[in-house]
Amino acid sequence: MTTANATAARVRLTILLKDGVLDAQGQAVERALRTMDYDAAHVRVGRVIDLDLPAANWQEAAREMCTRFLANPLIEEFEITRLDEEAR
Amino acid sequence: MTTANATAARVRLTILLKDGVLDAQGQAVERALRTMDYDAAHVRVGRVIDLDLPAANWQEAAREMCTRFLANPLIEEFEITRLDEEAR
Repeated sequence: MTTANATAARVRLTILLKDGVLDAQGQAVERALRTMDYDAAHVRVGRVIDLDLPAANWQEAAREMCTRFLANPLIEEFEITRLDEEAR
Repeated sequence: MTTANATAARVRLTILLKDGVLDAQGQAVERALRTMDYDAAHVRVGRVIDLDLPAANWQEAAREMCTRFLANPLIEEFEITRLDEEAR
């Protein structure tokens, strides 16, 4: 993934339910996979948000928007990774 | 993330719409972030599925279940990563 602006960071936010929280979607996927004879276990379903942020403060901005808006800190946890640095 | 069984691989499947495909959810998140004064661009929203698979053939099983069941190959692309090896 490339960004048009050299001062932009390509960032991935991964949001998953915390371990203790019932993941109904994960259970449904696990049941479906087992029906299809896949030996899958501990399935958790979450969401991923890829976006460009100003490189100057991408970590701070990403953490803030996850906490305030994109994730529910009561029941969800999030990971922040930079995609364009990993690729180097 | 640890797995109970030493022969299990902890695998992450990341499923995103292909680049050319309209991502309405991504557009909605981008608009909302801009309303909140975040300088976010090229926002794409997808889903992530973490699961345990038998370590012997985790890559093959993951690719197969993505193609057949979890992703729509017409409009989506997927990434397969092993979480417990990355952590080493």
